Amino acid sequence: MSLIEALQWRYATKRMNGRKVEQPKLDNILEATRLSASSVGLQPYNVIVVDSPELKEKIKPIAFNQPQITEASHLLIFAAWDKVTGERFDEYIQDVADQRGVPVESLDAMKNYKEKILARPEEENHNWAARQAYLAFGTAIAAAAMERVDATPMEGFNGPALDELLGLKEKGLRSYTILTLGYRDEAQDWLVNQKKVRRPKEKFFLEIA
Amino acid sequence: MSLIEALQWRYATKRMNGRKVEQPKLDNILEATRLSASSVGLQPYNVIVVDSPELKEKIKPIAFNQPQITEASHLLIFAAWDKVTGERFDEYIQDVADQRGVPVESLDAMKNYKEKILARPEEENHNWAARQAYLAFGTAIAAAAMERVDATPMEGFNGPALDELLGLKEKGLRSYTILTLGYRDEAQDWLVNQKKVRRPKEKFFLEIA
Repeated sequence: MSLIEALQWRYATKRMNGRKVEQPKLDNILEATRLSASSVGLQPYNVIVVDSPELKEKIKPIAFNQPQITEASHLLIFAAWDKVTGERFDEYIQDVADQRGVPVESLDAMKNYKEKILARPEEENHNWAARQAYLAFGTAIAAAAMERVDATPMEGFNGPALDELLGLKEKGLRSYTILTLGYRDEAQDWLVNQKKVRRPKEKFFLEIA
Repeated sequence: MSLIEALQWRYATKRMNGRKVEQPKLDNILEATRLSASSVGLQPYNVIVVDSPELKEKIKPIAFNQPQITEASHLLIFAAWDKVTGERFDEYIQDVADQRGVPVESLDAMKNYKEKILARPEEENHNWAARQAYLAFGTAIAAAAMERVDATPMEGFNGPALDELLGLKEKGLRSYTILTLGYRDEAQDWLVNQKKVRRPKEKFFLEIA
């Protein structure tokens, strides 16, 4: 199946049937997400994987009782770093050195990026981190569709309450989105047969010569 | 080729060879981008497609003379709505009504979303629009890789200068990212044979039970 066919097949699933997502499919979705591009390669966010039924029950009221939260097999929660710190950046530079087998001293270009980024206001860096998380969120949505796993991209939840429940603040994270993964319940889902609407090409693309 | 294979194949191409991207491949990348999910379906951003050599020459100094700008076949510029306005929202609601063949009056849930979103501070809505653009940016990066088209996701340019050059401010848009599309120049590209580095699974994913 092509990516376009997958994206046409997918929709923001409103009801799921509780069926578990098979481990190889889940692994592929997670790995595609981890492989997402990010600015300077920093990946300044984390993805929290939830499959405990008890925890999903606790998250449900925080997400305005949307039924997919508990009907889904897994929840992926995308949470951006609250602060881009020197320590976090250094850990990344060390990862690059380790994975490429080169001395940290050879990575001066990255250290220059680090200085530039750390010189920006904290809130600007947080917003930037959140945008990187959305880039990966886009990859995860595409990856789920390629696996024919249904998914609901979700912003409709109380972020601070979720951060509190999951202890994310202590980890220096702020949740932005949830991607529920599972399988559609066609009989219950009002959206399943609705035509997908996207802005028409002539409004969405601008050609400037 | 699987999505994971495509994402492993891709890298932020530093040098391109000037070869044109074939129209069917370009069309697939653009269509996948347009099919991206977005909050409430609003797609509060535009994608500007540039292939004019003269315009690329003008953009190059704005992008710190990165050679891919002129070596690429096409540039996709992702620009978020500066303001989420009632007019823009109404146009979208009308698109939904037209494409689904239902009366606008039946779309009350969307009008409720509109009121909620318009009640938020302008800058919050702009940041939200920018995040939606990054979600689509992630789709575009994956789509290019699936077509085996090389691409460079780029934030390194002077946004206000690019907006000025392209007249984006007048269109109510702010540019955030460029995706160059083309083909790698292996002989010139220092990055082509470097190992891809991503944060290790155990740091990137958090499992909370």
